[in-house]
Order: sequence, then structure tokens, then C-alpha cells
Amino acid sequence: MNKYCILLFVLLTSSQIFAQDGFKYTDGHLLNLRGSSFASEDDYNRLDSVQRLPLPARVQELAQNSSGLTINFETNAKSIRVKWELEKLLTIWNMTPVAINGLDLYAFENNKWQYVASARPTGEKNRVLMVDQLDGRSRKYRLHLPLYSKLNKLEVGVPDSSTIKAWTQSFTDKRKVVIYGSSITQGASASRPGMAYPSIISRKMGLEVINLGFSGSGKMEFDMAKTLAKIPAAVYVLDCVPNPSPQQIKERSYVFIKYLRIQKPQTPIIMIESVYRETAYWNSKTKSMVEQQNQEFRNTFDKLHAENPKGIYYIKSAKLMGTDHEATVDGTHLTDLGFMRISETVMKYLKKAL
Amino acid sequence: MNKYCILLFVLLTSSQIFAQDGFKYTDGHLLNLRGSSFASEDDYNRLDSVQRLPLPARVQELAQNSSGLTINFETNAKSIRVKWELEKLLTIWNMTPVAINGLDLYAFENNKWQYVASARPTGEKNRVLMVDQLDGRSRKYRLHLPLYSKLNKLEVGVPDSSTIKAWTQSFTDKRKVVIYGSSITQGASASRPGMAYPSIISRKMGLEVINLGFSGSGKMEFDMAKTLAKIPAAVYVLDCVPNPSPQQIKERSYVFIKYLRIQKPQTPIIMIESVYRETAYWNSKTKSMVEQQNQEFRNTFDKLHAENPKGIYYIKSAKLMGTDHEATVDGTHLTDLGFMRISETVMKYLKKAL
Repeated sequence: MNKYCILLFVLLTSSQIFAQDGFKYTDGHLLNLRGSSFASEDDYNRLDSVQRLPLPARVQELAQNSSGLTINFETNAKSIRVKWELEKLLTIWNMTPVAINGLDLYAFENNKWQYVASARPTGEKNRVLMVDQLDGRSRKYRLHLPLYSKLNKLEVGVPDSSTIKAWTQSFTDKRKVVIYGSSITQGASASRPGMAYPSIISRKMGLEVINLGFSGSGKMEFDMAKTLAKIPAAVYVLDCVPNPSPQQIKERSYVFIKYLRIQKPQTPIIMIESVYRETAYWNSKTKSMVEQQNQEFRNTFDKLHAENPKGIYYIKSAKLMGTDHEATVDGTHLTDLGFMRISETVMKYLKKAL
Repeated sequence: MNKYCILLFVLLTSSQIFAQDGFKYTDGHLLNLRGSSFASEDDYNRLDSVQRLPLPARVQELAQNSSGLTINFETNAKSIRVKWELEKLLTIWNMTPVAINGLDLYAFENNKWQYVASARPTGEKNRVLMVDQLDGRSRKYRLHLPLYSKLNKLEVGVPDSSTIKAWTQSFTDKRKVVIYGSSITQGASASRPGMAYPSIISRKMGLEVINLGFSGSGKMEFDMAKTLAKIPAAVYVLDCVPNPSPQQIKERSYVFIKYLRIQKPQTPIIMIESVYRETAYWNSKTKSMVEQQNQEFRNTFDKLHAENPKGIYYIKSAKLMGTDHEATVDGTHLTDLGFMRISETVMKYLKKAL
């Protein structure tokens, strides 16, 4: 409660300091920052520096991308501005700049989340009028942060005469879902941040999802299992087959998951096969690789399930992307079409597991 | 037939000239270039320079983007390479670089088109191995060209020992659909070229679709009506409400469509309302604008329908994008999710009309 008073004081002061354009700006950390594995007051990382310590350098770096993070606030403003600063404005061939570096805003309306607007990134420092000509009713909002960039600072601006405050009850369900995975989990290739499948699930199920997707680097190091075990998860979703080789899956997946089973015997685990890469229908090498990856993961599931069938679930690749071969941008990374499909399947299993 | 012999000769010569990496390269113009309103032997434009002459400068410029163009070929190659040269490599905040500047490849398999691979653009000049480790069976392919760039040159490469030739029977239905519209028609914001909704329709219905979407500039100038009337269309789809103001729609749409009705009395016309911009649920000015635009278009339809109900159709905005508010990248431009939805609706009307 004391902490909250200090935060409120900072909020009021900073608002006055930053009022320049008729808008008062509030730092994102004061607006119920969620989706991280730790409570941060000064960064937009998914794992903190202590949690990252024994992990590979690339995972440590990617953990500083703000994928899956949201801020949640209530305001009666008729206009909402956002200022944000990135470490670097990035371009990636199979993603939109707004998904990588930008933001999207939802409002909680008629008891569900509805898209409001997206904020266009133009450089490292950005200031955007996200929405204007609102009706002035007090409303709850959620802002999804950039998927593939490091965010250094973010502020939400409302007109001086409006009120804005953190919306602390932004999740109707207090349980947390942790999804560990690859670039697909991190959000490649959603059209905008809120369309990454962990975020779709979070909005639809009303619970917090920690996005631990690490592009190209979700390879099941044992230190990652130890990291995951420390997060107070209600369920673990392991979508980490696309990055490791079949040999790595064979060597790592059993000990990785077994460790979680021992450390968190009450916490269900959902294992997801790799998406069946579209290229695998054509390229015989890719076909062989993805099928071996999935076979090794399946072997691990069979072993764990034989040991104890309780609280362990397995999703086959055939259930992830539909059957029309149109769900990816490049054969591997899911578009919004693919993310809608995979989120439906994962939600079915989450409902079983929770 | 003479022309075809000359082309064959050029093909054989150029193949030998360009063989450097163990691959022989064939110019795209020799591989059944389709989707343009004219038969081109030296560019990748959608309208030729004569057709463009009286149109606004921006429309003339956009007509040189290769949106909706495809090349169609047959090869038994085990690997397919593509070389292409752009006027300029572009970045747009709400589109992927591969949709703007890149390519995607489909194969005709089990009597339908199936996605094979995408080609990553890295600069003005690109050379990409699109697919490798194929089985070597002879197969038909379609390559979708960049949506928002001017393409100066394109060549398809196959190993020296393979065969490649134009696939002239690439459309089972010989009728042409002409779609005139805005950025949405041009393909913003498909994840890759083949996911623009005119291209989805073309693959699913097996007929040629001429994409005449002009980003921000589909404003129904009377010269455009005259241009459209010259194209041998089996049906006109008019998706041109998002760009003109309500006043412009009031002034232009009746004369525009009436001209087509008079010039092409046997050719059905499908009028499509503007997508209901997601921002319109929040921003009262946007709401008023989009509703006025659609009302003016509806007034024109009512007048034309009263004059003669035959061969004129109208699609309301409620049928275009679904009801979950998740079909756009920015409130206006449809993602693959939105394009799948709009294509289903437009196809229903096309089947009625044709």
C-alpha cells in the first residue's frame, strides 16, 4: 500500500513535469504493467537480469524484447497519445514494422476486449495520437507492447483535464499461463503486437499469459527449465520444438520437462509439436527434419505419460494451423490467420488443464 | 504462332546467356504473365502507358506496381531460384517487406493451388533459392509478384538439366474479373503477395483477376470508368468507397457506374461498401465519414437498381470482415484473416453474377 502511494505521488509529479502539449503523460510502469515473469519498476523485460543470468546470450538479449507485455489503465480521456522509445527501430522481412516496434490498443467493452487502434513507429523515439474523438466515458484499456524490439521508455498521455489510473483488476482470472517457445510464440508473424497467439489467448480467457518465446533460441537448455520452475505458473505450455534439432530434443526434452514435473507436481504441462512447416510438403529435407523433431517430442511425452498421466497434455501439429496451407507468411511463421487457429486449439487444452 | 517461336528462341538464347550458377534463367514475360489489363512483353505494369494517360499522376505511378500479377509455368526442377529487380525496396509501417517487395510461389497439386514458399527481398536486386529438394516430378507453378513495388525485371531459374516452360492453361475459367479499388484491393495488408484478396479469389475460382487497387487513389475519376470499360471483363467489382470523400462519391459514383452499364450492358457489376473502419467504433468523426461514404454509395446503387435491376449487386460492409474486430492491422487494412473473410463474401457474389 505504501508502494502504491509512492507510485501515485510519482505519477502526479511526473504528469505535471511532462505536460507540454496539453497532455499529461504517465509512465507505463505506473499503469499495471503485466505479462512479464517478474514485477519491474524500471524496464520492459520478460525475464529480469537475475533470471537471465545462466541462459545463452541470445536468449538473454531476446528476453529484453517486450513481447507479450501489456499496460492496463482506466481513463475518461477523449484522446489518447503514446510516447515510446526503442533501443533500435528494426526491420524484419516477414513482419510488419508495427508488430516489431509498434503498439496496439484494446478497450474492455461489453465484457470483452475490442481492438481500438495501432501506433505507427517511425524511429527510435515516437509520439503518436492513438485515438481521438472518443465519447469521454471512463473506460478500461490495454496497450500491447512491441514484439521484437527492446523498449526503453513508454508513456501514455491524456488531456490535462482527464483522469488516468492503473487498472489493477485487468485479469478476471488470477492464474498465470507461461508459454515457452520459439519465434512463433514470440509473435512472428502477427500483424501487430496484440495478435501474437499468447496475447489472443490472454484477452479471450481473461488471464495473464507470460510470453517466453525466444526467436530461433527456444532450445530447452536446462537452465531454462530452472527459470520456468521459479515462475508462479498455473500451467506451462511448451511450444519449443521448432528451434532445437531432433538430437537436442532427444537429449534435452525429457530432463527439461521431468524437472518441471518434479518441482511443480501440481502444475499441468501442455506439450505442443512443431507446426508442420509448409515447406516440408515440398522439400524432403525439411520434411524429414520436422517429422524427426516431432517424433522425439512425442517419445518424451509417451515416456512422461507412462510414468504419470496426470496433468500432461500433448497437441499434435495437425491441430495447429488448419488444412488450407494458407496460415503462414513464409511456410513457418504464422500470420493472424494462423494465430487465430492455433489460439483456438491451445485454449481448448488450457481449459482442460486448468 | 510466329510470336511464340520468337519467344521460344529468345528463351533458349537467354537461358544460355544467363547460365552461371548451374541454373538457366527464363524471363518472366515468357512464362505466361497474367493479371494485367494488357499483354505486356517488357514491363510488369497493371495498366499500360496508353491506358494510364488521362489518369491522375498517383494512379499512373501505382499502376506500375505489380500487384495481382502472376507468372505461370511448368517445370520438373528439383530446385527453383528467382532473380528480381525492383525500382526501389520499400518499407511501409503496416505491411511486411515480403508483401511489398517479395514473391510467393504456389504449386497446382491435387487440382488446387497450394502454397510452396516465399522469397525474401533484401535490396533492389535479389536472387533467392525459393525451394529445394523437390521430387523432380513435372508440376505447374504460379509466382505472385510484389504488391507495392515497381518490378523492373524477373527471371525464374531451374537447374540446367531441368525443363521449364510457360503454363498457358493456368486458368480453368477463361473469364476475367476486374476489381477496382483502394489500398485494400491493392493488397494492404496481406502477409505476402498471394494473400491479397483478389489473388485468393483467383486461385480458388480458377479465373484471372485483374487487380486495379490504387492505394489511397481509387477515387472514381471518369477517365477510370473509360479505362475499365476497355478491359474485356466478365464482371466488374467496385471496391472503391474507402478513398473518395462522401461528396466525391455523390458526384462521381453514379456517372462512373452508369457509364459502365451503358458501355457494357451484359457485364455484371458488384458494388462493395467500404469496410467499416474499426476506428469508427471509437472515433466519432471516422464513424460519421465511413457511414456517409457508404450511404452515398448505397444511394447510387438504389438509383441504378431502380433503373434496371439486372446484373447489379451490392455488398454491405457488415459482410466483409467478420464480427470479432480482429481482421485489420490498423483498423482499416485487412490482414490475411480479413482477406480470407472478404474473399469468401466476394466469391459468393461472383458466383451469383457470373
